[in-house]
Amino acid sequence: MSSQEAVKVVVGLGDRAYDILIGSGLVARAGAEIAARLPGIRAAIITDENVAAAHLAALSESLEKAGIASTAITLPAGEKTKSFAALQQVVDGVLAARLERGDAVIALGGGVIGDLAGFAAGIVRRGMNFIQMPTSLLAQVDSSVGGKTGINSAHGKNLVGVFHQPRLVLADTDVLDTLPRREFRAGYAEVAKYGLIDRPDFFAWLERNWQEIFAGGPARAEAIAQSCRAKADVVARDEFETGDRALLNLGHTFGHALEAATGYDGTRLVHGEGVAIGMALAHRFSARMNLASPDDAARVEAHLRAVGLPWRMPDIPGQLPDAERLLAYIAQDKKVSRGKLTFILTRGIGQSFIAKDVPASEVLAFLRENHPE
Amino acid sequence: MSSQEAVKVVVGLGDRAYDILIGSGLVARAGAEIAARLPGIRAAIITDENVAAAHLAALSESLEKAGIASTAITLPAGEKTKSFAALQQVVDGVLAARLERGDAVIALGGGVIGDLAGFAAGIVRRGMNFIQMPTSLLAQVDSSVGGKTGINSAHGKNLVGVFHQPRLVLADTDVLDTLPRREFRAGYAEVAKYGLIDRPDFFAWLERNWQEIFAGGPARAEAIAQSCRAKADVVARDEFETGDRALLNLGHTFGHALEAATGYDGTRLVHGEGVAIGMALAHRFSARMNLASPDDAARVEAHLRAVGLPWRMPDIPGQLPDAERLLAYIAQDKKVSRGKLTFILTRGIGQSFIAKDVPASEVLAFLRENHPE
Ligand SMILES: NC(=O)c1ccc[n+]([C@@H]2O[C@H](COP(=O)([O-])OP(=O)(O)OC[C@H]3O[C@@H](n4cnc5c(N)ncnc54)[C@H](O)[C@@H]3O)[C@@H](O)[C@H]2O)c1
Ligand SMILES: NC(=O)c1ccc[n+]([C@@H]2O[C@H](COP(=O)([O-])OP(=O)(O)OC[C@H]3O[C@@H](n4cnc5c(N)ncnc54)[C@H](O)[C@@H]3O)[C@@H](O)[C@H]2O)c1
Ligand SMILES: [Zn+2]
Ligand SMILES: [Zn+2]
Repeated sequence: MSSQEAVKVVVGLGDRAYDILIGSGLVARAGAEIAARLPGIRAAIITDENVAAAHLAALSESLEKAGIASTAITLPAGEKTKSFAALQQVVDGVLAARLERGDAVIALGGGVIGDLAGFAAGIVRRGMNFIQMPTSLLAQVDSSVGGKTGINSAHGKNLVGVFHQPRLVLADTDVLDTLPRREFRAGYAEVAKYGLIDRPDFFAWLERNWQEIFAGGPARAEAIAQSCRAKADVVARDEFETGDRALLNLGHTFGHALEAATGYDGTRLVHGEGVAIGMALAHRFSARMNLASPDDAARVEAHLRAVGLPWRMPDIPGQLPDAERLLAYIAQDKKVSRGKLTFILTRGIGQSFIAKDVPASEVLAFLRENHPE
Repeated sequence: MSSQEAVKVVVGLGDRAYDILIGSGLVARAGAEIAARLPGIRAAIITDENVAAAHLAALSESLEKAGIASTAITLPAGEKTKSFAALQQVVDGVLAARLERGDAVIALGGGVIGDLAGFAAGIVRRGMNFIQMPTSLLAQVDSSVGGKTGINSAHGKNLVGVFHQPRLVLADTDVLDTLPRREFRAGYAEVAKYGLIDRPDFFAWLERNWQEIFAGGPARAEAIAQSCRAKADVVARDEFETGDRALLNLGHTFGHALEAATGYDGTRLVHGEGVAIGMALAHRFSARMNLASPDDAARVEAHLRAVGLPWRMPDIPGQLPDAERLLAYIAQDKKVSRGKLTFILTRGIGQSFIAKDVPASEVLAFLRENHPE
């Protein structure tokens, strides 16, 4: 793909519709793309130490060339940065730079930076312009699209935040070259998720083409664009997650519980890995509940194993809390409505649905059967 | 007014429209009014130490009688409570009580508690139900209506927050009996503001009836209802303050600068007092710019003086920074667009308008003329 050909996906949200551009060379073109949409603005770039080392200079230069003055706020990398303390640091930094409502906060990083910077942009002066420049595969296919922002609390992940849509998403596929392989693989779990939710043909295509996606050929940009389209569709249907949007949580109820159970220790389990195991468990649990064929669960497990993702609880290094404790983590998760457990279950590949009133006793029995000990 | 007759004002915001009930006995009836609108919920009451001492027990009991389980989070009274630290405390407390999106945060207090609790309700789980029970006159006529929430930053007042509309506002006129007289008077400045913005007849009515309003007769509920109607009109026209809503800032650009200049020290100047002086200055400055007659400025000054409000800078106890420093505080205020000063000025009583590009040099000269030294 030449540096001039970006794929464009539009997120259809009426007067707040925005473009996602996906392609090569977009960091270098960021200044021009932003200036064309938001003339005369100034900006604050929010990033983390890893991403800053690899890409911050190029972005600052691109902005400067387009006449956009910017300051950068660089935070430690990792999930712990989605905290009240970091939020206050970003908010104070943006205010110290004297940015106004019409200026922009730019998130240059993975989902952690996107969620944090988006939240800050949503609350400084009750809402500033926000631009996503996702640098992890997970952020390019998932977290940068849809306007969900937030931080974690001692009571659980992502429990505090706002809906604040970006004005533009620039997903430069080249920056993924500096992303650690393990993180790329974790992001791939979210790509597979879109197939498993409601696109069986996409899942079958992934089964055939995953090696090319990992290698970085044209299939990579195609997979990212398809994922963005899938997410944009759901978001346009249900911006504020009062219905269908919950489907995007496929694999996430189990996944979040496992992330919590491992103390959000990224050396043991990163988000996308938790989602991979969670999706496999959701399919296996659906089979156990006689909702889907065990063959479909086996097919999901086989694909995750093939790409090198963890797919079952014993794949997590170190000890896990027992099944009762895992259930308690699930019940603490925010997708609990009035004490009943809500899960995304499936009738087969690409046939996921929202199941309310899932009996906790069944989940507990299932966790016991699948627990490493 | 009997305890069964509340005045109802509807804030017309489409599917997010809500009622403001104004009258006697509403704390005792709160449980029933809330349960009728939001059946089956639980609640967290956010309040401050002064208000808790006078009214918390009555509210908790009223909720309990209606079958609404509640916990209370009581914070220190005063503007300093609009901080990141207090926000985190409220957010953590609401999460610790395991409230869900459909449950409610209830603000029982003045504008400080309303702004803080509303912000917390707007960000916990990306938006919970929110109920305002304003207990100061200022909160009943102004801050509880319109969905603006927020906290202060080292860089200025109200710079961080969200728009989050309440589901219901319950303004119990009886609770004003425990409000310190000075606070009542300060709130009255915001009542007068609605007359000065665009209701000259209301201002004239206030000039004739202010004593009855202070004494607590039927004119009090009438003045509160008229004020809520005035604010609701502006909010329905411009929910997100992109235009007309800025008129509500009459007196606030000067007022905020004076609050900042006195270090938000409530012993020297409370918000409504800053607004009173600010409104007088806005009228006097408009006369100086030959926009309005000096007679109108004199009329405003005379009314504020009559009710016992401060109306000029020398009325503030202690030393003020010099005119240059005051101008710097004004320029720091958020109603600055791309370096130009924006003010609400007037062509006469009830004829306010948004003036952009007000020359800083004129403001400086005016501040020098009116400075106590
Ligand atoms: N808002 C949403 O809708 C949404 C959706 C899914 C996930 N999320 C959130 O996203 C977060 C996970 O995102 P993530 O996996 O991107 O985590 P991350 O932001 O921590 O990035 C993962 C790691 O990769 C590094 N990195 C990122 N891009 C790089 C690059 N180009 N070169 C070198 N290093 C790079 C980061 O420094 C970090 O160490 C979680 O907090 C999750 O809750 C949000
Ligand atoms: N959100 C908005 O649209 C908006 C509009 C105007 C003002 N405000 C904000 O409102 C705040 C000022 O509100 P305020 O004047 O109510 O201040 P406040 O909340 O500090 O209340 C003033 C004092 O009165 C006490 N008090 C309140 N009700 C009482 C009662 N019934 N009995 C005894 N004591 C009582 C409080 O404890 C406090 O000491 C400022 O922070 C201002 O920025 C917000
Ligand atoms: Zn995810
Ligand atoms: Zn005010």
